[in-house]
Amino acid sequence: MRTATKLFVFGAAIFLVLAAAPQTATRPKPGPEYASDGQLQFPANYREWIYLSSGFDMSYNEAQQMDHHMFDNVFVNPEAWRAFVATGKWPDKTIFVLEARGAEGKGSINQKGNFQGSVMAVEVHVKDQARFADKWAFFGFTAGAKTAKVIPSSQNCYSCHSEHGAVDTTFVQFYPTLMPIATAKGTVEAAHK
Amino acid sequence: MRTATKLFVFGAAIFLVLAAAPQTATRPKPGPEYASDGQLQFPANYREWIYLSSGFDMSYNEAQQMDHHMFDNVFVNPEAWRAFVATGKWPDKTIFVLEARGAEGKGSINQKGNFQGSVMAVEVHVKDQARFADKWAFFGFTAGAKTAKVIPSSQNCYSCHSEHGAVDTTFVQFYPTLMPIATAKGTVEAAHK
Repeated sequence: MRTATKLFVFGAAIFLVLAAAPQTATRPKPGPEYASDGQLQFPANYREWIYLSSGFDMSYNEAQQMDHHMFDNVFVNPEAWRAFVATGKWPDKTIFVLEARGAEGKGSINQKGNFQGSVMAVEVHVKDQARFADKWAFFGFTAGAKTAKVIPSSQNCYSCHSEHGAVDTTFVQFYPTLMPIATAKGTVEAAHK
Repeated sequence: MRTATKLFVFGAAIFLVLAAAPQTATRPKPGPEYASDGQLQFPANYREWIYLSSGFDMSYNEAQQMDHHMFDNVFVNPEAWRAFVATGKWPDKTIFVLEARGAEGKGSINQKGNFQGSVMAVEVHVKDQARFADKWAFFGFTAGAKTAKVIPSSQNCYSCHSEHGAVDTTFVQFYPTLMPIATAKGTVEAAHK
C-alpha cells in the first residue's frame, strides 16, 4: 500500500486507479450511488467538491521508507461540508475522497520542492447508516473501475479511523478549516480533546 | 518572501494574513469585487471554490534555504473553472487564490511527512480586462485585511507569469487536471509546447 494513503485506508491493499479528471460540470445526485450489485459508483465529479487538505508523504509508521514522494488530497461532498460547518457533525450520505498523486520535482520553472503529478489511487469513505452496520464504509477503486466493492470491516482502516479519528471516525485533526469548527461545536471525540 | 509562494508572486514582499476559514455557505457575487477606493475585496469564500493543486516547498531558486516547510494550495472561482473546462481559456473575471500554509510534521498519529497547518499568506491573481492594462493583476492581503491594493506591474510576478505561465500568464503546467484540457484545446503558449 502506498504510504501516502495509509492515513485513510490503513493496511488494505493497493488500489490503483487511472482516474480521469472530471471534464464536465454536470451535477450528479448528491450522496453515494450504488450499482445493482451493491458496489459503490465512482464519484466522478469529486474534483468539484470541497477541498479539505493535502498531505505530503504522510505515514503512521516512522520506519516506513518510500522510493518516491506522494501527495494526498482530500475532498468531501458539498452537502456534507455545509452540514459540518453548521453542526460540527457529518450527516448521513457524507462522502470523502482521498486522491493520492505522485509528486514531481524539477519541472518547468520549479527547482526545489514538489508539485502534483498523476493520480495513483482513489479511496472513498462513505457514511450510509441504513446500509452499513458501523455507519461508515471504505472503498478502493482499481484502475479504471466504475464501481468498487466495500472493504471488509475486518480491515484495520476501520479500527484505526475509529480509534484515532477526531470526529466520527474521520481525521478532522488533519483538516485545518474544520478542526476549529468541531472544537467550537463540541463534537471532537474525548480522546482528542 | 516565503519560498512556497514564489511561484505565484515572485519577488514581491511577504503578505501575511490570518484569514479565517469560511464558516458559512453564503454565495457572494461571482467575479472580483472592489472597494470604493479601488482595492480588491478579500474573496472570503475561496475555500468553497475549485481546488487546482498543491505544492510543497516549491521554489524557482535551487539555492534557496528555508527553516520550515510550506504547502501552497491554489483555488479558482467556479465560473472561471467551468469556462476553462469548456474552452481551455480563462474568461474575464477569473480569480486565482494562492493560500500558503505552514507544514506540520509529527502530530496526532502522523509519524512521517507533513500535513497542513495555519494560513501564512493569501495572494490573489485577477483577470479584469477593463480594469487592468495587462488584463491581469496581483494582490497580496496583509494580516486581517479586508481589501488589498494592486501590486505594481513593475514587480516581477508579472514578468515571470508572462514568460513562464503555460496558459495566459497562469501556471497551468502545475495544475494536473487542467493541463490536459489546455493541450486538447490548443491553448498552451508556444513556449510550453
